[in-house]
Amino acid sequence: MKIGRVAGNVVSTINHPFFDGQRLMICDLLDGDGEVAGYTIAVDTVGAGVGETVLIIDEGNSARQIFGLSTGPIRAVITGIVDAIDTV
Amino acid sequence: MKIGRVAGNVVSTINHPFFDGQRLMICDLLDGDGEVAGYTIAVDTVGAGVGETVLIIDEGNSARQIFGLSTGPIRAVITGIVDAIDTV
Amino acid sequence: MKIGRVAGNVVSTINHPFFDGQRLMICDLLDGDGEVAGYTIAVDTVGAGVGETVLIIDEGNSARQIFGLSTGPIRAVITGIVDAIDTV
Amino acid sequence: MKIGRVAGNVVSTINHPFFDGQRLMICDLLDGDGEVAGYTIAVDTVGAGVGETVLIIDEGNSARQIFGLSTGPIRAVITGIVDAIDTV
Amino acid sequence: MKIGRVAGNVVSTINHPFFDGQRLMICDLLDGDGEVAGYTIAVDTVGAGVGETVLIIDEGNSARQIFGLSTGPIRAVITGIVDAIDTV
Repeated sequence: MKIGRVAGNVVSTINHPFFDGQRLMICDLLDGDGEVAGYTIAVDTVGAGVGETVLIIDEGNSARQIFGLSTGPIRAVITGIVDAIDTV
Repeated sequence: MKIGRVAGNVVSTINHPFFDGQRLMICDLLDGDGEVAGYTIAVDTVGAGVGETVLIIDEGNSARQIFGLSTGPIRAVITGIVDAIDTV
Repeated sequence: MKIGRVAGNVVSTINHPFFDGQRLMICDLLDGDGEVAGYTIAVDTVGAGVGETVLIIDEGNSARQIFGLSTGPIRAVITGIVDAIDTV
Repeated sequence: MKIGRVAGNVVSTINHPFFDGQRLMICDLLDGDGEVAGYTIAVDTVGAGVGETVLIIDEGNSARQIFGLSTGPIRAVITGIVDAIDTV
Repeated sequence: MKIGRVAGNVVSTINHPFFDGQRLMICDLLDGDGEVAGYTIAVDTVGAGVGETVLIIDEGNSARQIFGLSTGPIRAVITGIVDAIDTV
């Protein structure tokens, strides 16, 4: 799983019906120093807002299970909002 | 999921029967700044044209489910046309 | 599978119920020379402490099977503590 | 899916029985400019020869389905020979 | 699938029971020129020794099927010893 920061949302009107009503967020992926290192498009499940640090899981079966689906064209989801990262 | 831009199509006459009649597109993958960073070959499901910005999902099970298949040698598909990316 | 070193833990109060009570660790991934090369967030299954060298498996089905689950939004787990790496 | 060019074949006499009688090819992976960017070892299913440009799919379930198998230690296969890539 | 060279073995006494009695090898991954480019930890299935060139498959379902398991926290396995790579 990776740490990301919500950067904005993606507007797509011509798409697979699965995405109707879903919040599709563009998230910066952060490296170990908190610097931006790539991005992913993830479906939000926790009400994350722009600028929040989030936990992202990028695996199809995990993503479908979060939505209680056996099928669905989805791979990355925001599964948590990160309060703190404690490194001693 | 990733953001891409359709760059062209791939012509392959000797291939797996699954691909008969499918539109196989070469898509530039875009980084967070909209610059080209790699590519993938994806099957089109939304009628995307060359130059359009698209949402690409690259996972076998997602790809098969879009086609209603339990089997099929497919991994990347174009699942949406991107109207806008809103970053505040 | 990869070699990592536990760097700290992640605190997330708004997340998927699966993570309740799980220890979510941030782990540096080590390259072949033992240098840090990226990171991952993994669920601990062996009681690994900060600074310990660990074996990390990053695959959804493996991760779920370790927890005896058929479903669960999880991908990376710490599956072992590394005592030594013998290269002749 | 990726574009590759067949570079040669791999000879392995001590291996999993699945590979008996299969043509195991080393393929250069090509980037968007047609330059070599890495390689993969793939099982040939279309009779591709050295120097030919091919379509490679690198996903376990896709690979097994091409061979009509429910199990098998295989991940990358050559699924087509590329005649042309049309980019306008 | 990738070409690797066995570099040594990993000693881990606190780990998942699956790994009891398995030979866990650290393998250099080789690029197209035979140079080291990363590594992986793989379970040996063919009796590969240190210094031998091997075929590595890195996919969970493939790995489990080699061991005849429906479950198991395993992703990378050594599936063959490479005698030669013929590139014309």
